[in-house]
Amino acid sequence: MTTRVGIIGASGFTGAELLRLIAGHPDLELVVATGDSQAGTVVGDLYPSLAAAYPDLVFAANGPTLADDHQLDLVFCGLPHGTSQEIVPALLAPGRLVVDLGADFRLKDPGLYPTWYNAEHTAPHLLAESVYGLPELFRSELAGLGGTGLVATPGCYVTTATMALAPLLSAGLVEPSGIVVDAASGVSGAGRPPKPNTTFCAVDEDFTAYGLLSHRHTPEIEQNLTHVAGADVQVLFTPHLAPMNRGILATCYARPTSPVTTESLLDALHAAYDPEPFVVVRDTSPSTKATLGSNTVHVTAVADDRTGWVVAIAALDNLTKGASGGAIQAANVALGLSETAGLPAVALYP
Amino acid sequence: MTTRVGIIGASGFTGAELLRLIAGHPDLELVVATGDSQAGTVVGDLYPSLAAAYPDLVFAANGPTLADDHQLDLVFCGLPHGTSQEIVPALLAPGRLVVDLGADFRLKDPGLYPTWYNAEHTAPHLLAESVYGLPELFRSELAGLGGTGLVATPGCYVTTATMALAPLLSAGLVEPSGIVVDAASGVSGAGRPPKPNTTFCAVDEDFTAYGLLSHRHTPEIEQNLTHVAGADVQVLFTPHLAPMNRGILATCYARPTSPVTTESLLDALHAAYDPEPFVVVRDTSPSTKATLGSNTVHVTAVADDRTGWVVAIAALDNLTKGASGGAIQAANVALGLSETAGLPAVALYP
Amino acid sequence: MTTRVGIIGASGFTGAELLRLIAGHPDLELVVATGDSQAGTVVGDLYPSLAAAYPDLVFAANGPTLADDHQLDLVFCGLPHGTSQEIVPALLAPGRLVVDLGADFRLKDPGLYPTWYNAEHTAPHLLAESVYGLPELFRSELAGLGGTGLVATPGCYVTTATMALAPLLSAGLVEPSGIVVDAASGVSGAGRPPKPNTTFCAVDEDFTAYGLLSHRHTPEIEQNLTHVAGADVQVLFTPHLAPMNRGILATCYARPTSPVTTESLLDALHAAYDPEPFVVVRDTSPSTKATLGSNTVHVTAVADDRTGWVVAIAALDNLTKGASGGAIQAANVALGLSETAGLPAVALYP
Amino acid sequence: MTTRVGIIGASGFTGAELLRLIAGHPDLELVVATGDSQAGTVVGDLYPSLAAAYPDLVFAANGPTLADDHQLDLVFCGLPHGTSQEIVPALLAPGRLVVDLGADFRLKDPGLYPTWYNAEHTAPHLLAESVYGLPELFRSELAGLGGTGLVATPGCYVTTATMALAPLLSAGLVEPSGIVVDAASGVSGAGRPPKPNTTFCAVDEDFTAYGLLSHRHTPEIEQNLTHVAGADVQVLFTPHLAPMNRGILATCYARPTSPVTTESLLDALHAAYDPEPFVVVRDTSPSTKATLGSNTVHVTAVADDRTGWVVAIAALDNLTKGASGGAIQAANVALGLSETAGLPAVALYP
Repeated sequence: MTTRVGIIGASGFTGAELLRLIAGHPDLELVVATGDSQAGTVVGDLYPSLAAAYPDLVFAANGPTLADDHQLDLVFCGLPHGTSQEIVPALLAPGRLVVDLGADFRLKDPGLYPTWYNAEHTAPHLLAESVYGLPELFRSELAGLGGTGLVATPGCYVTTATMALAPLLSAGLVEPSGIVVDAASGVSGAGRPPKPNTTFCAVDEDFTAYGLLSHRHTPEIEQNLTHVAGADVQVLFTPHLAPMNRGILATCYARPTSPVTTESLLDALHAAYDPEPFVVVRDTSPSTKATLGSNTVHVTAVADDRTGWVVAIAALDNLTKGASGGAIQAANVALGLSETAGLPAVALYP
Repeated sequence: MTTRVGIIGASGFTGAELLRLIAGHPDLELVVATGDSQAGTVVGDLYPSLAAAYPDLVFAANGPTLADDHQLDLVFCGLPHGTSQEIVPALLAPGRLVVDLGADFRLKDPGLYPTWYNAEHTAPHLLAESVYGLPELFRSELAGLGGTGLVATPGCYVTTATMALAPLLSAGLVEPSGIVVDAASGVSGAGRPPKPNTTFCAVDEDFTAYGLLSHRHTPEIEQNLTHVAGADVQVLFTPHLAPMNRGILATCYARPTSPVTTESLLDALHAAYDPEPFVVVRDTSPSTKATLGSNTVHVTAVADDRTGWVVAIAALDNLTKGASGGAIQAANVALGLSETAGLPAVALYP
Repeated sequence: MTTRVGIIGASGFTGAELLRLIAGHPDLELVVATGDSQAGTVVGDLYPSLAAAYPDLVFAANGPTLADDHQLDLVFCGLPHGTSQEIVPALLAPGRLVVDLGADFRLKDPGLYPTWYNAEHTAPHLLAESVYGLPELFRSELAGLGGTGLVATPGCYVTTATMALAPLLSAGLVEPSGIVVDAASGVSGAGRPPKPNTTFCAVDEDFTAYGLLSHRHTPEIEQNLTHVAGADVQVLFTPHLAPMNRGILATCYARPTSPVTTESLLDALHAAYDPEPFVVVRDTSPSTKATLGSNTVHVTAVADDRTGWVVAIAALDNLTKGASGGAIQAANVALGLSETAGLPAVALYP
Repeated sequence: MTTRVGIIGASGFTGAELLRLIAGHPDLELVVATGDSQAGTVVGDLYPSLAAAYPDLVFAANGPTLADDHQLDLVFCGLPHGTSQEIVPALLAPGRLVVDLGADFRLKDPGLYPTWYNAEHTAPHLLAESVYGLPELFRSELAGLGGTGLVATPGCYVTTATMALAPLLSAGLVEPSGIVVDAASGVSGAGRPPKPNTTFCAVDEDFTAYGLLSHRHTPEIEQNLTHVAGADVQVLFTPHLAPMNRGILATCYARPTSPVTTESLLDALHAAYDPEPFVVVRDTSPSTKATLGSNTVHVTAVADDRTGWVVAIAALDNLTKGASGGAIQAANVALGLSETAGLPAVALYP
């Protein structure tokens, strides 16, 4: 029995990536995809990459009873922050899973929204009951949903930094304070609409930092790492823009709690990740390209005797594991499907 | 019952692409992958993109009885030209399908090998009995193999140009002489080994022509188009190198046999391709990116009243539909499997 | 004595390129740069690349007496087509040179504007008296201006195709009819403002054709080649977009008037271009990268005995030789300065 | 009176960049360029970008009396580490300036060579008398050479990190210990010869770290910063490879000595750099592209109240300011020429 799926906000890059992955998913059946600004457009005209699989699909307009009208079992929301919290409450219904790819339900502390998103949360009661959609940290909570309720999937930088650091903090190998996360992302993280700083001529052959001190993924990284560390974690996060379509690599710097070797760091990563279907522990630096189009994360860590720093590095595809693939993985778990269904573990290379 | 598969020459890009696709193929089971220069190397070390799917696979050395020892039902050969013709004859056996991705069995006329490949063919008897692995042109011949024999898959430029022009020649809409094929390819077509002209610093931000008048895909394009035209076709082919990993776009120029409209050209393309699972006819220019990582070809055509030229354009991924995906498609047909099994019709975007 | 220079429409890419080159020009002094949409913006904020050379320059607004107010000897106009013809007539004054980089004064036949630009020309009397700013074809006419009057510089594709084909047509080596110009350009040709088809994510890893049969540089190529051939030349022109910032390579196909060798084609190119300071004749394919940031054009040609085609190829930087560098070169000639003043002949590599 | 210049090891990228810049330098005359592996090759064949400026130049072989034979006033050495120290002692002569772009004379402490370069230094007496070729730190020492002696120019990452941090350490605003330098470089830093990890297909669409904990520019960054801080500085340095030709951006993390504001950090940068001809202080993140092909460095700094970190960022072109441009700047100072002669302050954009 297939799961009837709708996507709200499907015309952006995470929506297109959901459509790509759902086309190969054995248990999900796409029923409707909305895109208000593109309502009426043939999907294959906006995304010729999808034309062969969805020759007749047309973007629908959002509508208040859309999920009910289409008898949807699973709704993915890919809307700008602030918008999901207005729409999601009405979508929740018995027997339906709502997976929100936006930022609106990621932070558990309502007090963080005014600070980082400049607005009070309008549905704070859902923050506690929603489940954070990172199976590697919250698999049992996702499975416990039994196919009903709300999942909030992580930000793309957040998954990357969390995967690099969580096992080291969880094992007590590094200090929770003074952590630096220095990361670079491909341009697709900035979304589909044209902007002056994402034109080809602005980005190609350029490397630059942005969002200095103020990127909104910061408190979410801290929330995850605090969860696993059992102590308040504080992170300075600096994102950079690299001239590539996809991929995030996070290079993370932390202080060891006591002298530590590279071997013991790798042991901690292996202990955490060897059972995971979508994590590869490497003994050299990960590279974003090794994850292109896949749901796989690559991680490593090294200890520097000379300066006393620990460096942990993770790489993934920001649109797959970092967004839509991770969302499907979380949905698979929450729906009781095979966790790996429809998700490529191999990357496109070159 | 799964088909036991071996890849000879798996360490190159077409080999890696076969491994990527076979990892998601429901009916094929990879048993052995050889790579003489990489024998003993863990596949995931050379291609971290494959590490999650093949954690323990090691490149094997070639060996004369390798196919028999592993009881292989299907052997893909990805070897340099001149090498396949030495190895393939011994691989052929009842109940086994050999799919050669190299150039050695593509041209039916043995006399063309000295001209274009500078050497006599050493197994000319196989040229007649092998089937050319382009299902859109030779589907019934492939199906007729019944899972035994030799398939020679097309060159990447050849598939592109053939898909653009074949329906127009077949329908008698354009003249067989005076055709120009002007095409651009991503760099992966040049293979994995480092060369002075394929370093990042040589290629990035560059566009150049190469192989002027002498590219080896020329006679193969002519062979295909002659086959569908029923008359000798002659083509001037100019390949270019574009700064991208994958993708070929061929812009083809031909003279109409009589005054023709864009509509009638598109009608001919639709008539030929609407039944095809991997061809999309568009009314604007195809783009390589719409095919990235997929087995899909996009085509269009226009007629210019002013100058009397017909322009036909096709785009595909040179490693997928242009090589390894096309080879699996041909193998699927030859083995009686679903033609689309294991082959993505959607592309990675962006 | 320096020449006082103003740029009208300086906030686009050709304007920025003029500012880059003027910063190193020994005889030109920039006095004012307008950019209506950017009026009041510090130049170095919009273009940090120019910050070191123009720390205090601010984009001015256009104004009807701006050229007079600033006592400008030389005005470059980089405005959208249709706009220059409204502004240029008032700029012309004794002792002042106006160099228009737009399309409004390139075509000599007023009848072509409605066909290709969808509007009647509003200052047709200037079409006859303006000089076409391609020194390799119109050096004496430019010099004859004596520093006063109007120069219309060529379109970027036009310079490329003209440089490839002009000597062959001029020498009567190829037929004037049936010519195909197949060219690829970097993205900067589309200008600075963000558009859906010029975002990084749309262009990177993509190669596509556009403007099929209808690109506005077509009649201009024909005008130039007709001028040198002494017979009506007709061209089918197909532009492509390549994933790079700068550069155009044009691959041109023509029929020889009588059997011809590659040697005789190269002889014709050498005869035409060896005296030229900014043209390099090569015996292999030019590459765009060899011209990056320089005012140099690279050209070659080959003859194909087998198919009877002649292929001529040229490459240049669309913003330098193809626009602002070519404009300065023409101004240098028209002003009686050294033709090469301020213009790099070497390219940035890699 | 022009300075007679020779380049030893001119066939690599820093050699080609020297040739590019010298072509536009009013006071330098290139006399000879050697490239042992390319001896006899026409420069314009290896680097078509230089063909127009050096139509007849041929790479010479190195030779023991080459500098004397050509009566060279200035010799640039661009040789692999270990090689310069064998050749430079014989090049030094009264009235001749030798500028070494390699690593052999950068570190003042001979004891660091075995640790970081795996070999004892063979000319340690020259370490003390050579001048470190970074005019922003050692302008008076360079001027004091009076055109004779040895200059060792900095590593590309070293200049970047030094320019970001030196004024902050010099002013006592940040602690000398616990500094992290996280930097990304374009691929040209890896040199011209093809390598498996610098092919287009390996690098394009990839971002990765390399040289973890062990990059040889580490002790050189520490040497410079210790010099300005007056206290031992220790740095953890992590380089990354970005898919672009040129450019380095260094994001540096340090602890303030006492609470500090972004304003006071920017004040320190302005105080140090406003008199400098090649440094631009910005209040947003620098970008590598704003420096492409220029000798200009862009820097900024911010203070984070929340986490107590200072972030300082610098960007430059690794081949220009980071290598050959910086070398010419140092030579200009050492020779008593205008410091800015022949060096573009504006960058190529886009």
